[in-house]
Amino acid sequence: MQGIRIVDLTSVLSGPYCTWLLGSLGAEIIKVENPDGDMARVSPPFKDGISLYFASLNRNKRSLVLDLKQPDGREALHRLLATADVFIENMRPGVRDRLGCSDEDLLRINPRLVRASISGFGQEGSLARRPAYDIVVQAMSGMMSINGSLGGEPTRVGFSVGDIASGLFCAIGILERLYRRDAKGAAQTPPVDVSMLACQWACLENAFARYLNAGIVPGPIGSRHPSFTPFEPYPTADHDIVIALGSAKDWGRFCQAIGRPDLEHDPRFEQDEPRLANRDLLDEVLGAHLRAHPSAYWLETLAAAAIPCSAVNNIASIAESDIAREYAAFSTVETAEGGPMSFVRSPIAPRNAPPERAAPALGQDTRDILRELGYGEGEIEALATFPR
Amino acid sequence: MQGIRIVDLTSVLSGPYCTWLLGSLGAEIIKVENPDGDMARVSPPFKDGISLYFASLNRNKRSLVLDLKQPDGREALHRLLATADVFIENMRPGVRDRLGCSDEDLLRINPRLVRASISGFGQEGSLARRPAYDIVVQAMSGMMSINGSLGGEPTRVGFSVGDIASGLFCAIGILERLYRRDAKGAAQTPPVDVSMLACQWACLENAFARYLNAGIVPGPIGSRHPSFTPFEPYPTADHDIVIALGSAKDWGRFCQAIGRPDLEHDPRFEQDEPRLANRDLLDEVLGAHLRAHPSAYWLETLAAAAIPCSAVNNIASIAESDIAREYAAFSTVETAEGGPMSFVRSPIAPRNAPPERAAPALGQDTRDILRELGYGEGEIEALATFPR
Repeated sequence: MQGIRIVDLTSVLSGPYCTWLLGSLGAEIIKVENPDGDMARVSPPFKDGISLYFASLNRNKRSLVLDLKQPDGREALHRLLATADVFIENMRPGVRDRLGCSDEDLLRINPRLVRASISGFGQEGSLARRPAYDIVVQAMSGMMSINGSLGGEPTRVGFSVGDIASGLFCAIGILERLYRRDAKGAAQTPPVDVSMLACQWACLENAFARYLNAGIVPGPIGSRHPSFTPFEPYPTADHDIVIALGSAKDWGRFCQAIGRPDLEHDPRFEQDEPRLANRDLLDEVLGAHLRAHPSAYWLETLAAAAIPCSAVNNIASIAESDIAREYAAFSTVETAEGGPMSFVRSPIAPRNAPPERAAPALGQDTRDILRELGYGEGEIEALATFPR
Repeated sequence: MQGIRIVDLTSVLSGPYCTWLLGSLGAEIIKVENPDGDMARVSPPFKDGISLYFASLNRNKRSLVLDLKQPDGREALHRLLATADVFIENMRPGVRDRLGCSDEDLLRINPRLVRASISGFGQEGSLARRPAYDIVVQAMSGMMSINGSLGGEPTRVGFSVGDIASGLFCAIGILERLYRRDAKGAAQTPPVDVSMLACQWACLENAFARYLNAGIVPGPIGSRHPSFTPFEPYPTADHDIVIALGSAKDWGRFCQAIGRPDLEHDPRFEQDEPRLANRDLLDEVLGAHLRAHPSAYWLETLAAAAIPCSAVNNIASIAESDIAREYAAFSTVETAEGGPMSFVRSPIAPRNAPPERAAPALGQDTRDILRELGYGEGEIEALATFPR
């Protein structure tokens, strides 16, 4: 996406996640911040005074600080938008109107601008102005209700799926609008209006298909598959491993591989249905057997028999693993303030992508960008000095 | 994406999710199945003999059945690919080579074809040929390790985030390649190689940022926010609700709103840090107070005070809610075999999109598509009769 300029008025997570990905594909991301900066800049923990939360999400971006409460700050933003391809924001609906960025303003400034918003519940409707956080949309959507221990309480999904899913959907929407504009010649494209709530529903498409057409109300099921077994974590002599038999024909091979050929034709376990009915018993039998060796032994044995399996890693064990090294899971950036910092690599960045750049210090690119926009040094001094 | 033809050799979840979304944006999706059909067609539960799992994911697609083990089946696929914009598959790496769809085959047939693959661990490397399922990548990536009850066992995320995240990333990759080809004039684009494992890592960017740069190993934290409170579910006289105070200045307003002004300046709770340290006590105090009224009362009270909040819905309560109705959460399709069926609407489909079409019966479009490719009736009869 070289040559695409994205003016990014987002903060915290959903929008910055979206523009992190678009930046990893080569787009130029200009992060516009108020003089206080993105709230995420003060989100702990820190390293060398830099918020890790912020630093992970804002790689490969430039930071422009403007006081959008002042007319000349808004005017500078408008000049920038006139040069841009995409405008993205994740403020509460209505707020951007006060910053001179209503739909009408944007189209007047740049009729070809691709416009994208992420909000809790979309730009319109009775919930539009409601504040929302990840946990609010996880709770409202039904997401929490299918997550957690078997029969237990609804539990928030441990990563911020409410934000991250909306960032992914927004990236899709932006790319589709750019395609329409630049490949199909559309003079103007409709705004991308991403609702975090609707994105959670889209993640729950299977749960809703079951409820709407068969009356099933799914609840938390822990780590067990509802209709297959083994398809869950098992203990070993050291760490738990997941074993996941994908089809009926895996059962015999599995029994042979683990050295329990006696189980293969055991009438309680041989066929899928009785095996499911006897899963508690099977768990006992397998648990006792698998505890005889450590996880490394079983993972090697199962992989050799082409049985899908994995260690149940934690963040440290996978980060330090040969797998993370081989697959170049992480990229390292040099920060101006401190030493190098490492983060997850974008999974869709091209292999020959240039090295990632560290997240910008607040306003580090303000003067350069104003200069590019044709401002004189006196004007720049006035615009870029805070408090004003 | 009108006029974009996507030849879809994916099955089950990750790939079909990706093409469901691209279809909802107007692309033509031709689902190529072997005579047995996508495995998901036999995944329970069923309505009128139709798998709900399959029916949700395969809306707005055409079904072409070909026997790719036969040379003339492969030849028909190749003729189709010569007319296509995108090829997508989610087989185990290497398998498509045997179907005449290696990278070399595809580029020979159609040098401009955008090619996309989703696999457990990417097309290359030591794990490439390993079978993978959602739970395997959730376990290996570290995803399970941060999900579940506070201090409890690592727990599979309740929806198939391993598959769905990879489908979303793949849609982004495909759109970016199409943009490069059709807007920037690239004669050929590198393949989109989506690794489910790498997509899980991307979802976990925050967890890895903490570990890699501050040595923190996050574990399951249930539904509590690690650094804010109230930011979690609370009991009421009937159902649990989530209350999420976004900033320090919400606290006073919250205490007033719930009729506990005495708490506002209580030294144990007034400031963020002591409040966090005394959260168990606060939970007791709030729990006792909130149990005096039902959830509807509290949600109204809190919303009026602009405190972010929500019912902790289950799939039924949100599906039957005014919110789902107002926001048109679901779309209804007419099936040929049975009555209407309802599913989650694509969150990025245009508002004026035509009504969704039901998932296709196995091979329902085979003859039409072969005819469009210029096959004569005799050839069509031979190609479309199974078993052959």
